[in-house]
Amino acid sequence: MLKKVEVCFTPALLPLYEIENTIVVVIDIFRATSSICYGFENGAKAIIPVATVEECLAYQNQTFLLAAERDGKVVDGFDFGNSPFSYTRQKIDGKTIVLTTTNGTHAINQSKTKANQIIIGSFFNLDAVCNYLANEEKNVLLLCAGWKNKFNLEDTLFAGAVVQQLVQNGFSCDDASTASLDLYNIAKTDLYAYTSKTSHSERLINLGIEEDIKFCLKLNITSVIPVLIGDRLEVLIR
Amino acid sequence: MLKKVEVCFTPALLPLYEIENTIVVVIDIFRATSSICYGFENGAKAIIPVATVEECLAYQNQTFLLAAERDGKVVDGFDFGNSPFSYTRQKIDGKTIVLTTTNGTHAINQSKTKANQIIIGSFFNLDAVCNYLANEEKNVLLLCAGWKNKFNLEDTLFAGAVVQQLVQNGFSCDDASTASLDLYNIAKTDLYAYTSKTSHSERLINLGIEEDIKFCLKLNITSVIPVLIGDRLEVLIR
Repeated sequence: MLKKVEVCFTPALLPLYEIENTIVVVIDIFRATSSICYGFENGAKAIIPVATVEECLAYQNQTFLLAAERDGKVVDGFDFGNSPFSYTRQKIDGKTIVLTTTNGTHAINQSKTKANQIIIGSFFNLDAVCNYLANEEKNVLLLCAGWKNKFNLEDTLFAGAVVQQLVQNGFSCDDASTASLDLYNIAKTDLYAYTSKTSHSERLINLGIEEDIKFCLKLNITSVIPVLIGDRLEVLIR
Repeated sequence: MLKKVEVCFTPALLPLYEIENTIVVVIDIFRATSSICYGFENGAKAIIPVATVEECLAYQNQTFLLAAERDGKVVDGFDFGNSPFSYTRQKIDGKTIVLTTTNGTHAINQSKTKANQIIIGSFFNLDAVCNYLANEEKNVLLLCAGWKNKFNLEDTLFAGAVVQQLVQNGFSCDDASTASLDLYNIAKTDLYAYTSKTSHSERLINLGIEEDIKFCLKLNITSVIPVLIGDRLEVLIR
């Protein structure tokens, strides 16, 4: 089977793709999927992605940690948002987190019903994700969370990093994966310098979370692959 | 006023953009907007873009030329499709053409009701379009027709070529225009070689219209700028 890797630049375009026999990799580099990977690296038991702040609140008074982010900020009254620095071992080891974010959890929920499998990618687990995909007999869709359904550069760069490895394993590309790979090749020697020209990066700097951005561009600090099982993310491979 | 240039990679994402005070440039390099520009260069009086083959047929028995393309081929029974080589002076000088295509006319119709102004771009009129946009006090949205609502490379490259000139005129970029510009910079020394790796190019080669592709990548063979007035395209600037 000739496997293909496609890139979907925003959840708004997901209905155009056939994903029944496909592994979908959800990507939200700044910062939801980075934080999810970091959370599992630090011992989280499960992470439940929900679409709305209200759904998140419904888990209150139970044994969950509640995390909610909108427009880059922690929602008032919540334990934390989606900064990776909040997902420390001390805080989350053995815990289940309920998480809602502007873009990332939206992307997960959009693909939930149809995809063969949904896993979570970030620069933190790049090689682990690529090795896994190379060994499965499935097509791959790299689903960028984007920003409010628009294209963004940082998610595209990560998609390009995955495409680079999958092409070496014989996968075929669509136009979007070709573009992602070419952009990654421009950016890869200094991802931080490249992403500093993105609109999202500027937005996050204005929020005073530049350290988050730098951290989210670190490669291969974990080998965990989070996977969606039912309504929650658990660790597929550690 | 700090003007901005944004790129919308497919008509499916158009609802995300505010275009009320914006000039929308519709782009379908292979081949609708290239052929439209070439048609006006060769004396077409007007081109009426319609969404469906049925709408096109409704103009039959009048003084119109009917052009219809679906999936890269001329629809059976029509005078011609969207190959630029069909839009010769001999054939279309002084004529009004009714045109429906897979992607290009869809993009025009999607933006029709809201945009401040809709003009048609292709490599054929690149500099004319850029000079016009640089001198207007409006934001710009470069609307790629894509392929059946998915991203494609050739429309993105043209968008990047426009972004390059507008940035030099002080326009600000979004992430999609930044990406388009970077891809254009990779491709510009040999656009044909670069586009030969696109899925659409492969599709057109399979249809035996490789010469169309080469031709549609020629720069600045005309200074006409087609503009949508009511339901039809006419020449804004010749």
